[in-house]
Amino acid sequence: MIENILKEKRNLINKHLAGLLKTQRPEHKILFDSMNYSLLSNGKRIRGCLFLFILEMFKVDYLQYLDIAASVECVHTYSLIHDDLPCMDNDDYRRGILTNHKKYGEGVALQAGDALLTFAFQLISQAKFSAEDRCKLIEILSIAAGAEGMVAGQVHDIQIENKSIELDELKLLDKFKTGRMIKTPVDMAIQLTHMSISDADQLRKFAKHLGLLFQITDDILDYKEDNNEIKNTHKNTYVSLLGLEKAKLSAEETAYKAIEALELMQVDSYILTELVLYILNRRT
Amino acid sequence: MIENILKEKRNLINKHLAGLLKTQRPEHKILFDSMNYSLLSNGKRIRGCLFLFILEMFKVDYLQYLDIAASVECVHTYSLIHDDLPCMDNDDYRRGILTNHKKYGEGVALQAGDALLTFAFQLISQAKFSAEDRCKLIEILSIAAGAEGMVAGQVHDIQIENKSIELDELKLLDKFKTGRMIKTPVDMAIQLTHMSISDADQLRKFAKHLGLLFQITDDILDYKEDNNEIKNTHKNTYVSLLGLEKAKLSAEETAYKAIEALELMQVDSYILTELVLYILNRRT
Repeated sequence: MIENILKEKRNLINKHLAGLLKTQRPEHKILFDSMNYSLLSNGKRIRGCLFLFILEMFKVDYLQYLDIAASVECVHTYSLIHDDLPCMDNDDYRRGILTNHKKYGEGVALQAGDALLTFAFQLISQAKFSAEDRCKLIEILSIAAGAEGMVAGQVHDIQIENKSIELDELKLLDKFKTGRMIKTPVDMAIQLTHMSISDADQLRKFAKHLGLLFQITDDILDYKEDNNEIKNTHKNTYVSLLGLEKAKLSAEETAYKAIEALELMQVDSYILTELVLYILNRRT
Repeated sequence: MIENILKEKRNLINKHLAGLLKTQRPEHKILFDSMNYSLLSNGKRIRGCLFLFILEMFKVDYLQYLDIAASVECVHTYSLIHDDLPCMDNDDYRRGILTNHKKYGEGVALQAGDALLTFAFQLISQAKFSAEDRCKLIEILSIAAGAEGMVAGQVHDIQIENKSIELDELKLLDKFKTGRMIKTPVDMAIQLTHMSISDADQLRKFAKHLGLLFQITDDILDYKEDNNEIKNTHKNTYVSLLGLEKAKLSAEETAYKAIEALELMQVDSYILTELVLYILNRRT
């Protein structure tokens, strides 16, 4: 059931994203192709869906805010393109297809990432609601994605490469690298819905646990995939630090904490509970 | 005299920039060091000064808008860091010191650029004036720096590498690559000053010519420097296409057009005329 609801929202987002990036200028075509190549590839759109789910829970007409869901997906996509570059993770495949730089070359991929990040802020600045709210969303997104947010996590990740770290440091790293951009759509939805302070607090707790859950399950999935191929890099993951069984247990406990936060809300949050269970049990 | 006025504004901007990027978290320090390394290096701050000059011409208290001058310099610095990367121009030195990636490694330099771009939007979103104006400035900056602006020019530049192009194509390329980010502080100042439509039109014409002038003089300076070293890369420049003497003539003509536009303004624009002459005759 959650699969169908997710699919409906994902289709909405995908359709919206597909109409965003077009150019009339032939000399800009390669850049737009490269941006669309990654933006329209087979993403789960968890961040965008999370944003729409919360608006829907609070009876907001979420169709008015598709540009905002799209802006979060643009930032997420830019981060993947740059993360895949040879100077970062040096990956050849992403979402089952060639990474952007393998398809378009490193220079174009670098610029496509830059342009997607820039476009996210353009989208919000041009949205059709109050300038106060638009500025607040830009502030939320820029802080979360920036030097004290996702980028800090990326740099921390570079620094620990080929070093062994403790669980606490891994949690701190992931809080920035993955957690901030899972929390962002939640913070954006809180800004737009004028919900009670208590509901906002519970949602923020939920978002914190969801971010961690997302990273643990990502590590578990990566571990299972990696068993089928040879990997040279030493990576710090929940599986490498805890072992597979304890990592699974930790994912379950984290999911439980996320659901616990939701249960203290004053509105019906079953859809988010379903989302937690979906992520806990996801296979991709 | 213009040197002194430029120096005064440049010092203001430099002092402001120096106070912007600080972190309490030791694990983020390397990223902040890397961002500050490029942001606080010996830049001319032409873009920021241009913005402040226009505000001053229209009797606006420009000290209120230092964050906006800073945001333009952040975007300019990010573009230089990414442009210097091995997958782009692969430069070892910039402004007389090691490029960011030579000093901090490619991964950190990539992320420092990303974080500076992101921070530019954070700065504007948090500025202390009307949300309408903040959104409008974010729109201006994101369009100018994005996929139909500066980034488009960068990608166009990648595509023509080692190819010979015509003067018209070079002008088109530079209009995006350099021109847009020279025009941006002018457009931002126009938004904030509520000047007459006629003055705004003249300023935009001035900005267009100034961007071209900046690029031609850049090419002339590069040519003179390159005469002292061996360069392997084939580059399309105004000097390579026109020859040194015709490039100088073209710079003079362009400066003349920029000043002509200024002379049709209803306010005293002598400071911008001085700036044009300063750029025409610059030696760095």
